[in-house]
Amino acid sequence: MDQENQVLNDDYDDIESDTGKVFERIYSQPFLIKRRNTTSQIAIVGANVCPVESLDYEIAENDLFKQDWRSRKKIQIFQYVLLKWVFALIIGLGTGLVGIFNNIAVENIAGFKLLLTTELMLKHKYYKAFAAYAGCNLGLAAAAAALCAFIAPAAAGSGIPEVKAYLNGVDAHSILAPSTLFVKIFGSVLGVSAGFVVGKEGPMVHTGACIASLIGQGGSRKYHLTWRWLRYFKNDRDRRDLITCGAAAGVAAAFRAPVGGVLFALEEAASWWRSALLWRTFFTTAVVAIVLRAFIQLCSTGTCGLFGKGGLIMYDVSAAKVTYSAPDILAVILLGIIGGIFGSLYNYLVDKVLRTYSIINERGATIKILLVITISLLTSICSYGLPWLATCIPCPADVSASCPNTDVSGNYKSFQCPSGRYNDLASLFLNTNDDAIRNLLSTSTVNEFHISSLLIFFVAVYCLGIITYGIAIPSGLFIPVILAGACYGRLVGRLFEPISKLDVGLFALLGAASFLGGTMRMTVSLCVILLELTNDLLLLPLVMLVLLISKTVGDIFNKGVYDQIVKLKGLPYMEAHAEPYMKHIVARDVVSGPLITFSGVEKVGNILHALRTTGHNGFPVIDEPPFSDAPELCGLVLRSHLLVLLKGKIFSRDRVLAGDKVLHRFSEFDFAKAGSGKGIKLEDLDVQEEDMDIYVDLHHITNASPYTVVETMSLAKAAVLFRQLGLRHMCVVPKSQGRPPIVGILTRHDFMPEHVLGLYPHIRLRK
Amino acid sequence: MDQENQVLNDDYDDIESDTGKVFERIYSQPFLIKRRNTTSQIAIVGANVCPVESLDYEIAENDLFKQDWRSRKKIQIFQYVLLKWVFALIIGLGTGLVGIFNNIAVENIAGFKLLLTTELMLKHKYYKAFAAYAGCNLGLAAAAAALCAFIAPAAAGSGIPEVKAYLNGVDAHSILAPSTLFVKIFGSVLGVSAGFVVGKEGPMVHTGACIASLIGQGGSRKYHLTWRWLRYFKNDRDRRDLITCGAAAGVAAAFRAPVGGVLFALEEAASWWRSALLWRTFFTTAVVAIVLRAFIQLCSTGTCGLFGKGGLIMYDVSAAKVTYSAPDILAVILLGIIGGIFGSLYNYLVDKVLRTYSIINERGATIKILLVITISLLTSICSYGLPWLATCIPCPADVSASCPNTDVSGNYKSFQCPSGRYNDLASLFLNTNDDAIRNLLSTSTVNEFHISSLLIFFVAVYCLGIITYGIAIPSGLFIPVILAGACYGRLVGRLFEPISKLDVGLFALLGAASFLGGTMRMTVSLCVILLELTNDLLLLPLVMLVLLISKTVGDIFNKGVYDQIVKLKGLPYMEAHAEPYMKHIVARDVVSGPLITFSGVEKVGNILHALRTTGHNGFPVIDEPPFSDAPELCGLVLRSHLLVLLKGKIFSRDRVLAGDKVLHRFSEFDFAKAGSGKGIKLEDLDVQEEDMDIYVDLHHITNASPYTVVETMSLAKAAVLFRQLGLRHMCVVPKSQGRPPIVGILTRHDFMPEHVLGLYPHIRLRK
Repeated sequence: MDQENQVLNDDYDDIESDTGKVFERIYSQPFLIKRRNTTSQIAIVGANVCPVESLDYEIAENDLFKQDWRSRKKIQIFQYVLLKWVFALIIGLGTGLVGIFNNIAVENIAGFKLLLTTELMLKHKYYKAFAAYAGCNLGLAAAAAALCAFIAPAAAGSGIPEVKAYLNGVDAHSILAPSTLFVKIFGSVLGVSAGFVVGKEGPMVHTGACIASLIGQGGSRKYHLTWRWLRYFKNDRDRRDLITCGAAAGVAAAFRAPVGGVLFALEEAASWWRSALLWRTFFTTAVVAIVLRAFIQLCSTGTCGLFGKGGLIMYDVSAAKVTYSAPDILAVILLGIIGGIFGSLYNYLVDKVLRTYSIINERGATIKILLVITISLLTSICSYGLPWLATCIPCPADVSASCPNTDVSGNYKSFQCPSGRYNDLASLFLNTNDDAIRNLLSTSTVNEFHISSLLIFFVAVYCLGIITYGIAIPSGLFIPVILAGACYGRLVGRLFEPISKLDVGLFALLGAASFLGGTMRMTVSLCVILLELTNDLLLLPLVMLVLLISKTVGDIFNKGVYDQIVKLKGLPYMEAHAEPYMKHIVARDVVSGPLITFSGVEKVGNILHALRTTGHNGFPVIDEPPFSDAPELCGLVLRSHLLVLLKGKIFSRDRVLAGDKVLHRFSEFDFAKAGSGKGIKLEDLDVQEEDMDIYVDLHHITNASPYTVVETMSLAKAAVLFRQLGLRHMCVVPKSQGRPPIVGILTRHDFMPEHVLGLYPHIRLRK
Repeated sequence: MDQENQVLNDDYDDIESDTGKVFERIYSQPFLIKRRNTTSQIAIVGANVCPVESLDYEIAENDLFKQDWRSRKKIQIFQYVLLKWVFALIIGLGTGLVGIFNNIAVENIAGFKLLLTTELMLKHKYYKAFAAYAGCNLGLAAAAAALCAFIAPAAAGSGIPEVKAYLNGVDAHSILAPSTLFVKIFGSVLGVSAGFVVGKEGPMVHTGACIASLIGQGGSRKYHLTWRWLRYFKNDRDRRDLITCGAAAGVAAAFRAPVGGVLFALEEAASWWRSALLWRTFFTTAVVAIVLRAFIQLCSTGTCGLFGKGGLIMYDVSAAKVTYSAPDILAVILLGIIGGIFGSLYNYLVDKVLRTYSIINERGATIKILLVITISLLTSICSYGLPWLATCIPCPADVSASCPNTDVSGNYKSFQCPSGRYNDLASLFLNTNDDAIRNLLSTSTVNEFHISSLLIFFVAVYCLGIITYGIAIPSGLFIPVILAGACYGRLVGRLFEPISKLDVGLFALLGAASFLGGTMRMTVSLCVILLELTNDLLLLPLVMLVLLISKTVGDIFNKGVYDQIVKLKGLPYMEAHAEPYMKHIVARDVVSGPLITFSGVEKVGNILHALRTTGHNGFPVIDEPPFSDAPELCGLVLRSHLLVLLKGKIFSRDRVLAGDKVLHRFSEFDFAKAGSGKGIKLEDLDVQEEDMDIYVDLHHITNASPYTVVETMSLAKAAVLFRQLGLRHMCVVPKSQGRPPIVGILTRHDFMPEHVLGLYPHIRLRK
């Protein structure tokens, strides 16, 4: 191990910086530049090289914090707890309303488009119908793309990976900004209405998180919307909790699945969890469920335009009796395996396409929009063109639904067919995605779709889903995956028809489950979401089985799609488990100098110099004689706190302790973390040249209880500590005496496999 | 704070002991003795003063571990992962089978008893009927009590609190032993059959945990059942994971609720959780669900005796249409408030009764059995006597069930009534608890029960539930709570009948939910369990609402019933959050000496002396010159590892490093943690008197990466670190140089409020 220490390169000087410079740092590593050529480690989709900021879930227990805590009265604590619940309520209400708005808007816009097309079709004006259909799609797509490209590039894509990264402690630039929220809501409506094979589920999760983040910002000084109580939430820890609630509310609103939402937040989104949060998240999703229910009841009277006929997915498979025997189990196992294979292939292809698109999207907003338009045209051609391949099928006699159907939603679309016949492919293609899924999941309609039609639709949706994700519109992954999965599920159901007693509708549901499991690799949450969607608990054992198999099979090949996107975006995500080789490296091995430290009473000039020349966010403070007998680690001071203190200008000519001046002048909340981009910046300080040589006392703003590890602590254990406690900085202290009291600081990036393997390339070989 | 340091009392010498001596320690504290008089901190229910052992979830990364890890081949890692899944499968199968056995046995025994009673009743031999009924109950009760009192006192009670404590890191003596498992299974069958107001749900959770623990023991050398691969699981961390799966499987088997089981393990049982575990737990509960389903199908042909008519609860409320309006919401809110108040009162009374019983039970096995017999008689008198208060009601004309009913289960029991009439109280009292709940939850039977009957039954069940928990039989709390809750739910439903559209059956369900929320204070898991029981997701918003309200109301008054029992049993449970006053105390303040440390190469005599005279489980190892330049902390060595090393007798005459001898002689697995009570004991060593002065090298078995905190770390932060990482020992290192390299060791007990407040009584006053 000693040999390995010599690998440390001295020019690697911003080792513990963890803001802004991530990408420069990563690319300053030769091995990573080499890697870039092969695996293209570029931040993608509209956020060319996105600056990221680590979050700090540790409470800086400095004197100010303690002073404030001591003076905190019972009523304030009560206010704080009450506010948490009020916020949960607001998040639930907000997300529920957005969910309703989204559905009403999509159903009306897409419905109008489909009505127009159908009317022209009925008049046999087929070219005009296509022009109308493709034109509408194009216009909507272009609008969505323009919103994304010009206002908030961060709103493109699903948003779930970014929310996941945020909850892990990585704040990608403007990912939760109000502009992103705006574009996410309207871009999603436009994108889904434009007939893309995209869902509104991922965007809903992102929307929920954005709403939660907005609430946690502590109001807006610009618009005089500050509120004294909000200051309690001005820290990363409380914001994290709010955003967890928001993510859960998003899923709950997207699927009308409150329990599923909580489980999604728990299983997929959150990296930290505690029991109290479970309860609050549950409350939030309950509020969402109640809002949705109220509006659906309101809309059932016909006041919401075309909404009410389709929309707000809830698939009814209760007509099918759930009885299964050995051949069904066999079919389910087969579905699971297919789901795992298709799912991992899907992930692989999505990854490849995303890397390609990221290069295209880097060339500017116009190119982005052009890409969206191209995909939109392709989608329109598929949707309108492919149904012509299908033959017209005579309407079944015993069906309760109208056939052929010229309405917006529903089965048995007439398309070009004469009366008494219907086009089964058109029932899938010329519908909203929600309705197409509903048709695939419809029970007691075994022969509605030809096997060839199902095959065509599956191939089209699978491919369109892959090439659509990554273009500059808000695009969820759930719906494409459910569509394709339900399609091959129904196919398998048709093949097993002679020996199976299960309804093909249930097969479609199990197919959707298998493909979801194969791509997203969630288990419990998907299971509950699907059960809440179908309202049939008797399916539980089958859904569980299929999910377990597809996830297991998928995991053999690659990671889940969200993890893959997080990695692709270059977000430094910390896994729950340390890499095995980290057991053989100690903390000292990845820390490198030069380390910048401050004295307990430091010259203003030195501090300003350090702030200017480095991007570091935390600086160790060391007490030296005469303030202590020997140099000792006093604690850690944060950049943001230093800026506030310097702006306050409590300086002194001599190198002496400042006493209680700082405590009298400031309160804890002056140091609260401002909303993103709102804190004091270095340029805001007006320190004069003559102040450079005078002193400032850092003791009161120093976190006197930073988490430390001894330099010989194995990196694996240090990583577990870092991740479990949600730290941003971890001090490495020397083992032996007679040396400076701190060896270095570990930050998130020091635990990244890229960094560690860059320092010790031979580990990679041994692996 | 300096002033506070002087409080440290020097006679407090076994401060970092954490095995066996817990109770002596606690009672050696004057403040605790004082407290004992007021709050009676005695371990209860058959485990008079139960020794507890802290668990260690930290991996001791010593040289042996590293050597083993380096040599571990891919196939071994694969074996390990595969075994985890095989174990999950076995746990699922085992728990599922026990669940089925339990149900079949209870239904047959209780059914036989009820049939006998009913037959005698039909012949108007009322006194004989009572004698038969009470006699059967008495015999069964005495058998259960004898099992509990003589074979495994730890099997009494619910078991959930102990499992919860185990998963928090506290292993109460023999709580997961094979004898406990045996008594839990048979005692539960006998107890439930005996007509007590107890459930089999808590015992099922305990059973699942016991099965999991048995599997994690690594076979049995005594019976030559060892298996090489099992050694991977010989550590607390893997056992914890297995037991989490077991607890989930228990709930799944008890309620046929696989998702609910997972959530229960997550919300109530487990203190640590990770995503991978979610998946494995889910698999286990899926296996349970499949086993149950298979057997129910098998039993539906009538091969299981009386089982199949009742048993394996699944309440069908689907007949009732779920439509609700404003008055219903009002009723639900009222139910929630009632549930919270009754629930917290229930907890309060259970606590009081348990304290009384613990004093009674301490007097020996005979007294224990007498107590059980007394309660059994009381229960029999209530069950048989109270129905006489009810008037006979004419059978409704339009009912599909047979009326009056002389069968084992079902509504409309005839009891003493003439033909064409039924006794509504008998339908509740003279049934198994499962059937009584089913009757209360039956829909479309609004007027089946008189309001006065419901009131009598509620009072009886509420009181019997309170006085039954704590006697020496395995007794779950779910069923009594559901019974009482469903009863007052139905009552409220009757009162709201004029203005409500909800069925009284649904009211009963909501009542059960409210009372569960009020006593157990779970939310998501209870909600999902209830939904899985009733198979009706449309109830979700109402169940959520009622649970949220009842938990909130209950939390105002006291803690959840399981937390209360954990506290009552004196188990040192670590809460997720540190107490607020711990922010003002630093780690140094609660650590006190004298600390026993070893040198890297230590005299055998010194080690033996330390092992003999203290109960400490971890000893810091300090390297001194000539092995290092200055004294430095080398790491932490565990008692169990020392014993293995001393038994191996790799000693040397001189004070020199032993080289690789230890690594050659031992492998990691020689140091694996043995099953409870199986490890090497101090008496097993045969170190001669002449060996006392020779040396042994501790370096290779020393965990070189112990987690450390600086002495000035706030106790609150240290507690979070300790709890989050699941530690058993935490080293406190000095802040300044020139002092010994370790200040002390913190263990679980040092974080207990009792200990901290004992050292600093004025904090309590300030609170």
